[in-house]
Amino acid sequence: MDYDTIAAISTPMGEGAIAIVRLSGDEAVQITDKIFQSPNGKKLSEVKTHTIHYGHLIDPKSDEVVEEVMVSLMRGPKTFTREDVVEINCHGGIVSVNRVLQLVLRNGARLAEPGEFTKRAFLNGRIDLSQAEAVMDLIRAKTDKAMNVALGQMDGKLSKLIGQLRQALIETLAQVEVNIDYPEYDDVEEMTIPVLLEKCTWVKEEIKKLLQTSSQGKILREGLSTVILGRPNVGKSSLLNSLVHENKAIVTDIAGTTRDIIEEYVNVRGVPLRLVDTAGIRETEDIVERIGVERSRQVLKEADLILLVINASEELSEEDERLFETIQNMDFIVVVNKTDLPQKVDLEKVKELANGRRVVTTSLLKEEGVIELEEAIAALFFEGQIEADDLTYVSNSRHITLLHQALDTISDAIEGAENDVPVDIVQIDVTRTWEILGEIIGDTVQESLINQLFSQFCLGK
Amino acid sequence: MDYDTIAAISTPMGEGAIAIVRLSGDEAVQITDKIFQSPNGKKLSEVKTHTIHYGHLIDPKSDEVVEEVMVSLMRGPKTFTREDVVEINCHGGIVSVNRVLQLVLRNGARLAEPGEFTKRAFLNGRIDLSQAEAVMDLIRAKTDKAMNVALGQMDGKLSKLIGQLRQALIETLAQVEVNIDYPEYDDVEEMTIPVLLEKCTWVKEEIKKLLQTSSQGKILREGLSTVILGRPNVGKSSLLNSLVHENKAIVTDIAGTTRDIIEEYVNVRGVPLRLVDTAGIRETEDIVERIGVERSRQVLKEADLILLVINASEELSEEDERLFETIQNMDFIVVVNKTDLPQKVDLEKVKELANGRRVVTTSLLKEEGVIELEEAIAALFFEGQIEADDLTYVSNSRHITLLHQALDTISDAIEGAENDVPVDIVQIDVTRTWEILGEIIGDTVQESLINQLFSQFCLGK
Repeated sequence: MDYDTIAAISTPMGEGAIAIVRLSGDEAVQITDKIFQSPNGKKLSEVKTHTIHYGHLIDPKSDEVVEEVMVSLMRGPKTFTREDVVEINCHGGIVSVNRVLQLVLRNGARLAEPGEFTKRAFLNGRIDLSQAEAVMDLIRAKTDKAMNVALGQMDGKLSKLIGQLRQALIETLAQVEVNIDYPEYDDVEEMTIPVLLEKCTWVKEEIKKLLQTSSQGKILREGLSTVILGRPNVGKSSLLNSLVHENKAIVTDIAGTTRDIIEEYVNVRGVPLRLVDTAGIRETEDIVERIGVERSRQVLKEADLILLVINASEELSEEDERLFETIQNMDFIVVVNKTDLPQKVDLEKVKELANGRRVVTTSLLKEEGVIELEEAIAALFFEGQIEADDLTYVSNSRHITLLHQALDTISDAIEGAENDVPVDIVQIDVTRTWEILGEIIGDTVQESLINQLFSQFCLGK
Repeated sequence: MDYDTIAAISTPMGEGAIAIVRLSGDEAVQITDKIFQSPNGKKLSEVKTHTIHYGHLIDPKSDEVVEEVMVSLMRGPKTFTREDVVEINCHGGIVSVNRVLQLVLRNGARLAEPGEFTKRAFLNGRIDLSQAEAVMDLIRAKTDKAMNVALGQMDGKLSKLIGQLRQALIETLAQVEVNIDYPEYDDVEEMTIPVLLEKCTWVKEEIKKLLQTSSQGKILREGLSTVILGRPNVGKSSLLNSLVHENKAIVTDIAGTTRDIIEEYVNVRGVPLRLVDTAGIRETEDIVERIGVERSRQVLKEADLILLVINASEELSEEDERLFETIQNMDFIVVVNKTDLPQKVDLEKVKELANGRRVVTTSLLKEEGVIELEEAIAALFFEGQIEADDLTYVSNSRHITLLHQALDTISDAIEGAENDVPVDIVQIDVTRTWEILGEIIGDTVQESLINQLFSQFCLGK
């Protein structure tokens, strides 16, 4: 396909040694040649693909030197977008990289929309939609394991499996077509139904297996929303600090929102904990009081994991028991802290209230028990399964929703076939399943959805 | 020279499409070959220089895929550091780029210190010290013009001029040597003094010319520290907002400091205004009250420019007059705002108090007068001179200090020669001038200073 030539800054904004302005499209080389001057006078259009050239960018209007650059030429189709790609490596300052971008735009390129390079890779058939989505997951990955899942998906692991399922459904449909075309042969129908049932059941089981990975996959991708709960002065901020200090915390500013909102990610044995309202904990040591009952219930409701901290040196208070009640249907771990002090808490009672959940005793002051807590967190969410690196994870909400829909339609097909529903009715459900699975890889997906998906990408990707 | 192989992330940290891990040193290729696998099985050691290769990074310990990358090979000496350089372009996520860096470090590279790549370019003789410093200026440039100055300096404009001055001094010294070696010839001394005076006077004039550019150069490089001053409710925050909105503001977080400190840069016709304490203005509309008399005097003292805002719809108050008094010896512009309301202020009196400084009338509400104000700011600081793009600017404090020292020593030499001081005494001052000028380009500079200079660079440069 032929598109216009796009350009964008492809490195994060900020001061750094190197920044990249990337161009993609038929005119990428021609545009660069207008503004690039190498010491030996060679033009990009004359050099080999996948080569790097030192020189200066000169504004053809004023003959002024704009930057000292290294230019990389990669001719399509062996490029990220399958189009001609030119990468201009310039100095990493804000003025410098903007100046290079402006020069490129003034000389014929169009500013790329967010995700447009990846979108072209998709539209030009180099990757499918699930692979394109994995590119973004990879950039946003908070842990090694999340990155491995994204790498696998980008490599086409999920696409391949989805392709196999759709292939099975196509074969089923072919069989059904024979049946519809030759209704006079009863034995065809007799043959058709068992084949259909066998293949559809296999597809259903595979979808179910995929969906089983989804809660873990989602956690890997988005982080485990975690709330530290407890009465004032039980050690909530100490717990927060030891989780953050023992592990590498990644603090993320959410772009476009107020500067006060911070997400703090802590990588606990491969589980990315997204610590909620850490600012609140640090400031006031009392999340519940600070944010009010209504708001605090909402925060708790949205949490994937609650760490309930109890003071071992005090008897259980009514307030503690109320906290247990509030979270009784949620995933939580009880942290009995301050074991360095004389113990007054009734540990049996705590275990009873925990109702089967893990109870970990800690002395955060003496740095005792944190390892056990981390193991408990990892065990709760991965039960050892995460080690199976060759598992295909589904982590993307869009994929999960589509898989659930596919599970419904394939179940309908199976139920129909089992209950002697005419094959041409069953066929509708099978076809629908095939289409829904196709949406995951972008084979049967609407343009508006594609535009919306890619608009969530970062600029320059 | 032979150094070990260093590596660092060379793009700004953050989420982006592409990040670069750069290696430099004798083992850059060998280290990359341990971890890089291209689809055609080619090794970097076998390919041509200045070429780009697609492939995967594989951890040799676990055989796991670490990232999908593009690897650029640039063999020395035609590289930034004059050493072998490998740039690994990976996905721009925080996990991704750190993972690549870790892999490279585990396989034999050492983490580069801040500025170490540029330091090697200097130590390996590709650039001199003033050029190295220009690299950092370029990255930190806040305006186009600041970037042009840095580009010129990086290109060796300043180095060349300094070289010429030193050459003249060397020739003078040679002449003096002849004189000292043959003291019996009186005519040699007669010849020596005029030559010495002529050359030294030329050097002195050139140094003076350079220093004349320094205040502008410093402003270009560091921005014009600007304070908006005035009584409450005269329109300070409106002025701030129109300066910010009419121009492109660059908000810079100062790394390593509290999140509250923000610098706001506004590019006013090539003059980078560094707006001081904008948070204070926005919050309280009253900088003087808020920060207290002592602190506010300090802020005023450090300012390069004060914008004093007066309310046109009120009579001049004692407080206004006191503000005029406080800043009487500073560079300021008077902004008489609210001309949309009935005028009560005595404009003649304001002009009298302004004592020759520009008085601009504005209605910020109606967006009137802002252009005139911007022109007044530009005129005050550049008097049209900034347009002379071929001027060599001195912008770096270190260079300015050295030039002042050189001016002193060369003046001493001239004075000595004029007052019949023996030439071997004059010679000491000339030699000292030659040495001081050498420090600018790093020719006669101590290692500790070099280490300190480069440590101020950003990582990966």
